[in-house]
Amino acid sequence: MKALEEKIIKEGSVLPGNILKVGSFLNHRLDVDFIMQMGEEIARLFSDAKVNKILTIETSGIPIAVAAAAAMHVPVVFAKKNKSGNISGDVYKTVVHSYTHGRDYDVVVSREYLSEKDNVLIIDDFLANGKALEGLIDIIGQAGATLAGCSCAIEKGFQKGGDNLRAKGIKVESLAIVESMSDDSLIFRQM
Amino acid sequence: MKALEEKIIKEGSVLPGNILKVGSFLNHRLDVDFIMQMGEEIARLFSDAKVNKILTIETSGIPIAVAAAAAMHVPVVFAKKNKSGNISGDVYKTVVHSYTHGRDYDVVVSREYLSEKDNVLIIDDFLANGKALEGLIDIIGQAGATLAGCSCAIEKGFQKGGDNLRAKGIKVESLAIVESMSDDSLIFRQM
Repeated sequence: MKALEEKIIKEGSVLPGNILKVGSFLNHRLDVDFIMQMGEEIARLFSDAKVNKILTIETSGIPIAVAAAAAMHVPVVFAKKNKSGNISGDVYKTVVHSYTHGRDYDVVVSREYLSEKDNVLIIDDFLANGKALEGLIDIIGQAGATLAGCSCAIEKGFQKGGDNLRAKGIKVESLAIVESMSDDSLIFRQM
Repeated sequence: MKALEEKIIKEGSVLPGNILKVGSFLNHRLDVDFIMQMGEEIARLFSDAKVNKILTIETSGIPIAVAAAAAMHVPVVFAKKNKSGNISGDVYKTVVHSYTHGRDYDVVVSREYLSEKDNVLIIDDFLANGKALEGLIDIIGQAGATLAGCSCAIEKGFQKGGDNLRAKGIKVESLAIVESMSDDSLIFRQM
């Protein structure tokens, strides 16, 4: 998505530790008009996939998942990182390692909201090592649901999460793939 | 919003501790088509307010804030409950007490994304004691921004957060106000 690449170049910045900061439109401040366009693009990419549910993970995946869901007219379920008092005990559960925060955390989805009838599109803001997506795929497997594919706003192509999933035959559509990045350059994969 | 009252009656359930569970459409599973309608209703209620930014708080406030922002064509900033590595040190900060989780937590907003030029609508999913909204109002004050008002999906009218804010002259528009609730009855305030 050319407009996203241009926005990353204009507004993004590279921080130590391979962090691409896009807080001005995707992670902290949300450029909602633009995020709704990204949602429409995801809907286009999966228009033939008969998706009936979107699965994402709190927090930053939620805006783009909502945008895609608004375009596809399907519900979103967001996995929770910490079990809260409002979720009953009957959950699918997996463990995800966060490189950003340097720790493992539990991820849960209530069994009420995901079942073998669902054909699920996973959406997240970033795809790097793919650990979050692997956790969500594990939850889809526990539910006996079908995985329609994965879509992320920004993939770090130099980390291998996205390509590893593609090698397994999973449809992974990222709206922009950063092939390399440094303080003064950002190179995108040609798509 | 009559459709919301009907949805709460149909899908909600009352849990011990005055918890109104609406996880099937607002908090865990998101009925996005319906949430987009709620966003349009909020846009209508604040159509004359010249809002140029929406402020919410992670996590559950984000979907409805995005829906309202899509209708109003303004950006969202969401306050973060824990300072993450991706937020630089220069933040507005306040402390909010959560009755649901029984603890205080820091809430931060990067100074980059809120300033004295902003006329801000605060949006959240629930309004009960109003502690989260008071924290966000404090942050708006720190930024020198203007408060246009507050809008929540569901207000617990029997707790006094919403009415206390109204008594201060703040415009507070909740889409449904639960006046009383128990295992077998839900009564809404007439609006």
